[in-house]
Amino acid sequence: MAEITPIEWLGDRVRILDQTLLPGKVAWIETRDWVEVGHAITGMKIRGAPAIGVAAAFGIALAALHSAARTNAELVADIGRAAQGLRATRPTGRNLFWAIDRVLQVARQDPADLKAAITGQALAIQREDIESCKRIGDFGAALLPEKATVLTHCNAGALATAGYGTALGVIRSAVRMGKKIHALVAETRPLLQGARLTAWELDQEGIPYTIIADTAVGHCMQEGRVDAAVVGADRIAANGDAANKIGTYAVSVLAKEHALPFYVAAPMSSLDLSLESGAAIPIEQRPAEEVLRFGNQVVSPEGAAAFNPAFDVTPARHITAIVTDRGVASPPYRRALKAFASTASRSIVE
Amino acid sequence: MAEITPIEWLGDRVRILDQTLLPGKVAWIETRDWVEVGHAITGMKIRGAPAIGVAAAFGIALAALHSAARTNAELVADIGRAAQGLRATRPTGRNLFWAIDRVLQVARQDPADLKAAITGQALAIQREDIESCKRIGDFGAALLPEKATVLTHCNAGALATAGYGTALGVIRSAVRMGKKIHALVAETRPLLQGARLTAWELDQEGIPYTIIADTAVGHCMQEGRVDAAVVGADRIAANGDAANKIGTYAVSVLAKEHALPFYVAAPMSSLDLSLESGAAIPIEQRPAEEVLRFGNQVVSPEGAAAFNPAFDVTPARHITAIVTDRGVASPPYRRALKAFASTASRSIVE
Repeated sequence: MAEITPIEWLGDRVRILDQTLLPGKVAWIETRDWVEVGHAITGMKIRGAPAIGVAAAFGIALAALHSAARTNAELVADIGRAAQGLRATRPTGRNLFWAIDRVLQVARQDPADLKAAITGQALAIQREDIESCKRIGDFGAALLPEKATVLTHCNAGALATAGYGTALGVIRSAVRMGKKIHALVAETRPLLQGARLTAWELDQEGIPYTIIADTAVGHCMQEGRVDAAVVGADRIAANGDAANKIGTYAVSVLAKEHALPFYVAAPMSSLDLSLESGAAIPIEQRPAEEVLRFGNQVVSPEGAAAFNPAFDVTPARHITAIVTDRGVASPPYRRALKAFASTASRSIVE
Repeated sequence: MAEITPIEWLGDRVRILDQTLLPGKVAWIETRDWVEVGHAITGMKIRGAPAIGVAAAFGIALAALHSAARTNAELVADIGRAAQGLRATRPTGRNLFWAIDRVLQVARQDPADLKAAITGQALAIQREDIESCKRIGDFGAALLPEKATVLTHCNAGALATAGYGTALGVIRSAVRMGKKIHALVAETRPLLQGARLTAWELDQEGIPYTIIADTAVGHCMQEGRVDAAVVGADRIAANGDAANKIGTYAVSVLAKEHALPFYVAAPMSSLDLSLESGAAIPIEQRPAEEVLRFGNQVVSPEGAAAFNPAFDVTPARHITAIVTDRGVASPPYRRALKAFASTASRSIVE
């Protein structure tokens, strides 16, 4: 079975799997234009904080590669414009800004072949993200019992990363270790990344799963049908507060009510030590239409108003452990995350 | 503005508003056949525990009125068959069984004109339910602040009752008392009774509202956007545990986490003193298709499994007050509900 990769570099263009069409249709967008990459991010054709980071890095590589600049200064200006445009796509996920900064750092080092250096850095970000996910998966899998029903919210899978996934990476690794895992997939309104994307990935992989409406999470826990919850994160503050897809916070409150372990799985590139707590994480507001309509179907009165925050923040005190590519952080998180970060930044500088 | 009535008695037939088509289309089903009334209940063309009770009573009246029986014994047998068929439609809501028992009690009293007596009793159930809702509304409205954003889940409105509604009755009465109420409407997957039905009712009534995905309830509370939650109930056990639409339990846990009042509004006909606690309330399992598809749109992989419980049980300890047509019960509920019930049953015997 082929690995699921949401984005590929094809030498002079990128190929993006259009996730808005899944699971009904597997279709790819090919583009040489960073602006189109930006539209794919805002339109959620590619989504998931780590995957967005990779897409933005490739976007800047495209801007460099296809720049009509005749001087190095013009090329750097073109790269800067692309970086600025891509930064404006989505505000909450940390990895977008992290990846853009990392690529721009290469430009600042003034390499002999800037275009090649930038493309190389973007490819390194992609490669390292897959490696990170596999480490997260293995670290997290060790936390799960031999036989467990594991609830996950949204899609923190191969589709949300460069491949393999964070929360789904944990489930994948546990299954590969021989653990008997049944995934309970919260559908995740409004855009149904659980029902559409997580279910599709698990289907490809042959991992048993059951879809539930988001409204059924509490009841399933009440009935003893859940052993643990594992979710991803779009941005983690210095104190361990974690922003993730809207609805994650409610899952964490329900897990606490039922004394169930609640794990957050994310690469170090999602960590934002510049923010003291989750209160400072910007929460993206998405169009009301995502709630008011369903595909082409109107599900509310004409002219109805909707409030559609795309993320919420789970306080660190609800999180049993944060599984990173550097190891498993336990509470209190501030010290552990800082220690991991100093190791991680050394490796990036290498 | 006309009152919203989900079911009407037209002398020899009933007219049922097909709620599966709202808000896109206002269409009615007219039938003389109790079997079709049963199908309307199972297919959720009419839903909401009190409305189902009224529909079942009218169903038995139709069975009596159009019976081909030539003897009283044959007529009683026809009525019994209809009662049995209607009892099998939906298991969780108490009012269905309560209404059927109340109509059958008339048959047992052997009145001179059984058909007229049964029809009269069904019409009394309908009339009394509207009166009950108005009392519930007025009792509950007194509990709300002068200015409040009130979260409601599912539809416990005029559409769910004979008219006026329970939880929405509380909001209606508060608005009529001059309170500034903004309704926060949880869309309520899988069947979207919030987005489709509650929003439609509020729209008709000119009460301001905002729709949110169920996943946004926790975030809205975190952000201080909710002052109270008011929901209906399909069955309330002797200890105050209340079954209501799936997702209600999670709202109650979140309300507790945020120290927000959580009110349950229901008529005495939803009370089931024969059950010690909510653990004994039967939870209806609905078809997986309701979760896996959305209208004609597939939102999950072919062959995916889903678990689709239609209700959950909120423990009495999460409920700030139970608002009934006999008054507001405060915890501990066992004594208060029993006292209300003895008053209520006297009034029914009258």
